[in-house]
Amino acid sequence: MPTNPIIKSLFNHRSIRKFKPDPIEPEVLETILRCGTRAATASNLQYYSFVVVDDPAKKKAIGFPDVPVAIFAMVDVYRIKRWLETNDTVPLKMEGVNSLFTGMWDALIALQNVVVAAESLGLGTCYYGVGIRMDVRRHLGVPEYVFAAGLVCIGYPDEDPGLRSRLPLEAVVHRNGYHIPSEDDIRRWYAERERTWDAVQKDKKAKLAEQGIHSIPQAVAAQKFSEQAMKDRSTGIIENLKRAGFDLGVIK
Amino acid sequence: MPTNPIIKSLFNHRSIRKFKPDPIEPEVLETILRCGTRAATASNLQYYSFVVVDDPAKKKAIGFPDVPVAIFAMVDVYRIKRWLETNDTVPLKMEGVNSLFTGMWDALIALQNVVVAAESLGLGTCYYGVGIRMDVRRHLGVPEYVFAAGLVCIGYPDEDPGLRSRLPLEAVVHRNGYHIPSEDDIRRWYAERERTWDAVQKDKKAKLAEQGIHSIPQAVAAQKFSEQAMKDRSTGIIENLKRAGFDLGVIK
Repeated sequence: MPTNPIIKSLFNHRSIRKFKPDPIEPEVLETILRCGTRAATASNLQYYSFVVVDDPAKKKAIGFPDVPVAIFAMVDVYRIKRWLETNDTVPLKMEGVNSLFTGMWDALIALQNVVVAAESLGLGTCYYGVGIRMDVRRHLGVPEYVFAAGLVCIGYPDEDPGLRSRLPLEAVVHRNGYHIPSEDDIRRWYAERERTWDAVQKDKKAKLAEQGIHSIPQAVAAQKFSEQAMKDRSTGIIENLKRAGFDLGVIK
Repeated sequence: MPTNPIIKSLFNHRSIRKFKPDPIEPEVLETILRCGTRAATASNLQYYSFVVVDDPAKKKAIGFPDVPVAIFAMVDVYRIKRWLETNDTVPLKMEGVNSLFTGMWDALIALQNVVVAAESLGLGTCYYGVGIRMDVRRHLGVPEYVFAAGLVCIGYPDEDPGLRSRLPLEAVVHRNGYHIPSEDDIRRWYAERERTWDAVQKDKKAKLAEQGIHSIPQAVAAQKFSEQAMKDRSTGIIENLKRAGFDLGVIK
């Protein structure tokens, strides 16, 4: 296996949820944000912005009072629109599906560069899905055509968790086309994940059993993919898309 | 500015569009894909798959006959659904907006890890927006709940382009809230980009003038954000979302 400091750093990623109170030095923060902007970007238009949150009241308002810094990667077509309009060019369809998906792509690969850079400098990071569901217009004052693509919290680690296991590579890599797995494939790929049930504490198991949950996949189905769970998680995203003015209604 | 081999590598990113014919060694390809799977992932569910395309006929079919390897990062909720169903758990709403956006997030940060790892090993990379618009069901046989989030082509570089400039950091970084820029801000941020007009060749300028295009922003507006351009680019994405069965109709 070829290796180098970059490969080693990528392989060493753990999500860090507990941070020391130490702030991130301004020059470190600037460096990791600059690394974000060096990521590839569609037509060199940078369809994104970062919103860096370190004000204590603001961190509390978004639900992260104890992290040194929270960084939102926003799809930002608003800034592009402003540029075009400033130059007597009237854009016609900034709200298109293409703007949104190009922006998601741009924003998330830029954010991952921030994460990779941060970890290389001894910082810990954790992505939080709630970032795309919360009302960023209210909390952060974002204008139209701005939509949160991702949120990561960053700080100096105050824990040292082990690496989490991943599915075997064959489960996620397809060659020259998507190969539909057999039942045996699925069972083999997920065997390690299913065994994590053994580590669940007895009283927690008893509580889950009352809800008809007797295994990891049953817990995942109930917690992540029940109709109610999906609705709860999707609602905030849909509201944010509407507030941002992205026209996904054309799909129906 | 703090630095290290990782920061240096991120700062050195250039998109490479011309590759040597040399194939990528299998152990190199495996290493960069493994780096992809070490990226953070929501609930450790890996809402993505990679489809690696290196078969000459398949590369030609997707429009990239001359690249060593094309890698699609797919939102993949199908594999998760298969796992849950194999275990007598009937998932109810895999097609929700939350699955799609969580998958976009997961897939794109995993793909950026592949890119960062590839570049650290001397490979060149280029993202291609067409990846999310092409009919991946026809070309790659993807099942329901699988949607292309991103496409990158990878190989050993046969060109050495300079770094492309980016907007000044103040244009893309907001602190504790989104700060609406003034007209002066916009003009200052985009001044360098607008000056690239000076390098456009005279006969190309004459041709653009016939279309009423006399500046970079006018060219961007006409080429990327005209009603027709947006419709053309959005149509393929919308078709792919429909084929994948993601229910974005709920937004209207």
